[in-house]
Amino acid sequence: MYLSNHIGLYTDFYQLTMAQGYYLSGKHEIPASFDYFFREPPFNNGYVVFAGLCDLLPMLEQFRYHEQDLAYLEEQGFHREFLDLLKNFRFQADVHSVMEGDLIFPREPVMRVEGRLMECQLIETILLNVLNFQSLIATKAARLRRAAGERRLLDFGLRRAQGLGGVQASRAALIGGVDATSNVYAGYEFDIPVTGTMAHSWIQSFDSELEAFRRFAEYYPDKCILLVDTYDTLNSGVPNAITVAQEMEERGERMLGIRIDSGDLAYLSKKARKMLDEAGLQHIKIAASDQLDELVIQSLLLEQKAPLDAFGVGTRLVTGHGDPALSGVYKLSRYRDKPTMKRSDNPLKATLPGAKTLHRYLDEQDMFAGDLILLEDEKPDGHYLSLITGKHVKTFSDDVRFEKLMQPVMKDGKIVNMETDIHKIISYQRKRIEQLPEESKRLINPARYDVWISGNIEELLKSL
Amino acid sequence: MYLSNHIGLYTDFYQLTMAQGYYLSGKHEIPASFDYFFREPPFNNGYVVFAGLCDLLPMLEQFRYHEQDLAYLEEQGFHREFLDLLKNFRFQADVHSVMEGDLIFPREPVMRVEGRLMECQLIETILLNVLNFQSLIATKAARLRRAAGERRLLDFGLRRAQGLGGVQASRAALIGGVDATSNVYAGYEFDIPVTGTMAHSWIQSFDSELEAFRRFAEYYPDKCILLVDTYDTLNSGVPNAITVAQEMEERGERMLGIRIDSGDLAYLSKKARKMLDEAGLQHIKIAASDQLDELVIQSLLLEQKAPLDAFGVGTRLVTGHGDPALSGVYKLSRYRDKPTMKRSDNPLKATLPGAKTLHRYLDEQDMFAGDLILLEDEKPDGHYLSLITGKHVKTFSDDVRFEKLMQPVMKDGKIVNMETDIHKIISYQRKRIEQLPEESKRLINPARYDVWISGNIEELLKSL
Repeated sequence: MYLSNHIGLYTDFYQLTMAQGYYLSGKHEIPASFDYFFREPPFNNGYVVFAGLCDLLPMLEQFRYHEQDLAYLEEQGFHREFLDLLKNFRFQADVHSVMEGDLIFPREPVMRVEGRLMECQLIETILLNVLNFQSLIATKAARLRRAAGERRLLDFGLRRAQGLGGVQASRAALIGGVDATSNVYAGYEFDIPVTGTMAHSWIQSFDSELEAFRRFAEYYPDKCILLVDTYDTLNSGVPNAITVAQEMEERGERMLGIRIDSGDLAYLSKKARKMLDEAGLQHIKIAASDQLDELVIQSLLLEQKAPLDAFGVGTRLVTGHGDPALSGVYKLSRYRDKPTMKRSDNPLKATLPGAKTLHRYLDEQDMFAGDLILLEDEKPDGHYLSLITGKHVKTFSDDVRFEKLMQPVMKDGKIVNMETDIHKIISYQRKRIEQLPEESKRLINPARYDVWISGNIEELLKSL
Repeated sequence: MYLSNHIGLYTDFYQLTMAQGYYLSGKHEIPASFDYFFREPPFNNGYVVFAGLCDLLPMLEQFRYHEQDLAYLEEQGFHREFLDLLKNFRFQADVHSVMEGDLIFPREPVMRVEGRLMECQLIETILLNVLNFQSLIATKAARLRRAAGERRLLDFGLRRAQGLGGVQASRAALIGGVDATSNVYAGYEFDIPVTGTMAHSWIQSFDSELEAFRRFAEYYPDKCILLVDTYDTLNSGVPNAITVAQEMEERGERMLGIRIDSGDLAYLSKKARKMLDEAGLQHIKIAASDQLDELVIQSLLLEQKAPLDAFGVGTRLVTGHGDPALSGVYKLSRYRDKPTMKRSDNPLKATLPGAKTLHRYLDEQDMFAGDLILLEDEKPDGHYLSLITGKHVKTFSDDVRFEKLMQPVMKDGKIVNMETDIHKIISYQRKRIEQLPEESKRLINPARYDVWISGNIEELLKSL
């Protein structure tokens, strides 16, 4: 429906205006290097979950301009000779990137695009659009997972998602920490588990709630979760669910659970738990939905001790409620083989010059101990400036263990390394969360994870 | 890339679970009627701009299940005979709707889908996904237009948009009040004006800012807007822009404007205006961008009297900052030829039963004077209950003028009436905004526009 053969048009108009200008001034093939990074984490979270890579790279590989696109651009006033250049345009740059599912921190470069000025410029918008949004939602999902602990966490958000963004949101939510989605298309496209039972209209379509429950149990004995709040949760929904659960027991079947979608979830779940337990149905789980987010879930579980086993999260997950955009940027850091930067009155907006790479230090327990930004071929020499404290430190000896976080993912515009198995990306994300110190994971006022720059980058910053 | 041949999968899993259940219980062809409406406007706005219709209806017309979809659903455990039913499934319902671009208010039904239970259920998710998001963004754009007055208003949001939702956002932003977009693909797909000049990387790619400006003016003499904040707005950017503007004047050309993208926009724009005026360049416009929203723009113009002529709005427009989802719902109102409703402890969550229609009263000056919800074949008889005040009123005589807001848009699943010319939709939206009383348009604490239900609906509500 959308986009398919028009990836080259998925850009801001000024990228094309500038591209033509570069061409006219003979600069379009000058070597350039751009960094992708963000300045502040969304939701005041302690980290961001990097997501979208596996969606982005094929778009870059297929980035081109077809006849219809060129005809449209000609109408917009672009010159014929520039359009001839676009006709044969292929993205042929090299890309280094952090792996999808890894945790990333403010100001550190997590993707580096090295190529010719024009090709690097033309892909800016699509790169930002894909990475910013999916990393945002993966981060929100990780916060929800933190709040829900080991309980089941489901994405029900498609109906209130931001249009087609809902498809990418469901994928990112799985990477960040959700167990399954209601979004069937996302399930099909990305091989992720789908789930869902009934809406209020199912209940309304039968003469009685009891009849609606009985029929559902008959058709779906293996996945029977009943929505109990259509008429009156405690006086009708839960008693009817108990009746049907007992009928199922007599047939040797097991109801999985009930779902409460409105009202006071703490009060209703406690009462319902008691009613179920008194009926000998301790195994029946209670799921909740209704405008949930990570702080509501945390309050339900920790403050109110609500006996909830599963959460359906919708709008507030898939729209990144509270901070609906990650402010990732893509900045020129090296041009014509020289480091460059955008100066700013606001030091937080100044960019880090030069083609850079990123190391992560691990302690003896394999926990993250801080990240170091280096120039590409630089060896860490123990002279670092902390971007968090602004202090100089000499932290590690040479024999300490570190990981190189950015790997080559595209060479000359071809994908050379990309994890496409979403289940492996998910496992990697879960492992990385375990490696992050506890203090950086809390939902409110997390400790700021330390990121350093090398002495050489500091020198460059001063000299430019 | 996404969706194309899989529209039938763009749904929540429970719609399919229920659909199979309806089929197994022989209810899938029972006549049903569903209403689309919302309960609270986003951003505490006084109205919502209805958008997305022209995007939705073709999706409904093309809604079907192909072999791959059915194979996937079989893996998910659906029965073979149900899948055979889906194989030949076509959406064949009738749809009545308010026209795209109209203004709508809480709890009034703005779309009615009448068909067989299963087909009405299967399209719920796609209907909500499309209408909720586009109406949200059109409403946000209308608020921005309110703040900007007659000044130029541009959508620069694609890079921080919620993934592919950015395409639909650009369309909706135009409907709601924006003049043009930076989103080239949206321009191509929807025939809307595109715009954009340069980023900081253009400036950085030249040896000096002056050289970068000169080259841009040379290549784009007719659309020269220079970004002046790369190094130092008042000491470098504006003086260099003035130099180039004067060079252009000597060649008989005219620079259009400058753009400020960071710093104190009020202070910088006043200083820049003074410098431009003193150089005899009164005609040069000043544009601003940088995390703008309607309240910032209102403060810049009304409180700070900033001499700004144009605004580039990005993230906060396309993500619906402040309220990233419209909480529109789709509820069963009539089933097996009888009115039905979902009861609720919360009276705001109770739905209005019966197949309904919507009238809008107009006063002698053609201004909106209130909306009335009626049963389908009911004649207004002057006995109404206000949903705002909860009081009974008898407002209008029979000869007062009203409009029927809902028109047939699909008959037996075929589109019978749809405005596809976005420029006509835009004109209609602008006209409707003029017809809305001033008090309901203000950005903060707008007056609540009155919506009544007929005496017959009130009777139904009491009897059910």
